[in-house]
Amino acid sequence: GAADLRTPRAVAELRRAAVVVGLDQYVEQVRDLLRPGTRVLASGLGAEEERARAAVAEAVAGHAVALIGSGDAGVYAMASPALEEADERIDAVGVPGVTAGLAASALLGAPLGHDHVYLSLSDLHTPWEVIERRIAAAAVGDFVVLLYNPRSRARDWQLGAALRALAAHRPPQTPVGVVRNASRPGERVHLATLATVDPALVDMYSVVVVGSSQTRVVAGRMVTPRGYRWRA
Amino acid sequence: GAADLRTPRAVAELRRAAVVVGLDQYVEQVRDLLRPGTRVLASGLGAEEERARAAVAEAVAGHAVALIGSGDAGVYAMASPALEEADERIDAVGVPGVTAGLAASALLGAPLGHDHVYLSLSDLHTPWEVIERRIAAAAVGDFVVLLYNPRSRARDWQLGAALRALAAHRPPQTPVGVVRNASRPGERVHLATLATVDPALVDMYSVVVVGSSQTRVVAGRMVTPRGYRWRA
Repeated sequence: GAADLRTPRAVAELRRAAVVVGLDQYVEQVRDLLRPGTRVLASGLGAEEERARAAVAEAVAGHAVALIGSGDAGVYAMASPALEEADERIDAVGVPGVTAGLAASALLGAPLGHDHVYLSLSDLHTPWEVIERRIAAAAVGDFVVLLYNPRSRARDWQLGAALRALAAHRPPQTPVGVVRNASRPGERVHLATLATVDPALVDMYSVVVVGSSQTRVVAGRMVTPRGYRWRA
Repeated sequence: GAADLRTPRAVAELRRAAVVVGLDQYVEQVRDLLRPGTRVLASGLGAEEERARAAVAEAVAGHAVALIGSGDAGVYAMASPALEEADERIDAVGVPGVTAGLAASALLGAPLGHDHVYLSLSDLHTPWEVIERRIAAAAVGDFVVLLYNPRSRARDWQLGAALRALAAHRPPQTPVGVVRNASRPGERVHLATLATVDPALVDMYSVVVVGSSQTRVVAGRMVTPRGYRWRA
């Protein structure tokens, strides 16, 4: 994410680390913060288990390890596989951060003023039937929905299916926000509705925010009221 | 929240402000960051509409206004009532932050490794039937559930009702984390299960995180795996 959304606590932990483990593109973003002599173990997309295992092994060996992510490492990211791997020998400290959904929502207005769901559309590790069932539950609950991993070159139909399932429960004029590269170079904010949103605008660097039945656009901003009246 | 979870962007906006509007206890936490001469409009709990209106009026009058909150102002907080009030005359910038659910989850481990729901149990502005319907939807969707405003002196039965509704869909050993004052003085982290959790430990400064059917405790930490198998 953006350097000015990085918390002082995260920076302090990076400075303290003797070993930094992370996705190559994220490691590049923090390289200037590291002390000279810090060992860097960078790897590519898809090597999540390998990174988790490497981070834990280094920690067991007694090194101060920082396992990094973009946004919040706890949200669909490396904290979970690493802590599954870790045992009592390791003293793990989670440093929370600004997850992509929060950065995107701040750009759209205030879509998260009331109850909301984070839902990943990636069927790489989760069967599509499970995702579908969750979309249906989010629709029935009239939650604002934040879609992570909404679309990629290989996964091109899931977003359309999700939007259609939500549209069956919400008015066509329900606001939908698409934010690409929130707070990063190439940032783009697009406001549409369930009836007009074009999935082709969405890629793997995007977060899609679908309003609840109560969400509306006020002066060009997406707002979900704090007070709530259930719609019919 | 904690000073070291405050982003540089938030600090810069506070320094730029000519007028700061906020809840009295939050204003006190940032008073040392303000330039001399900054006007401060602090008010108490319950005066949300008044604060929103004051912030917008000051901005319309041409002043640089910072409307502050704890955590992320967009999540159940002041961004929504303020943007409902604002019109095109105002140039509004949302600064995202670390919301309480993320701070609490980092202390518990990695409960947010997969899909999750933010749900407020406050029936002050939302009818209980709506909240109940959402709890049921979250249960059916097998989402990890973050409960905001879980309990106060005046609202003492809602949390029990929510936990019972979730327990009807999840095993009794499902992990439940209670975090009071995440990253603030008086911080307390408590790990229990749906069968054993004691609502009396929970107050209005707490966030309650209820695991999905897949969440488990590994070496004392609450972890929701990235990969997902639907239970039964």
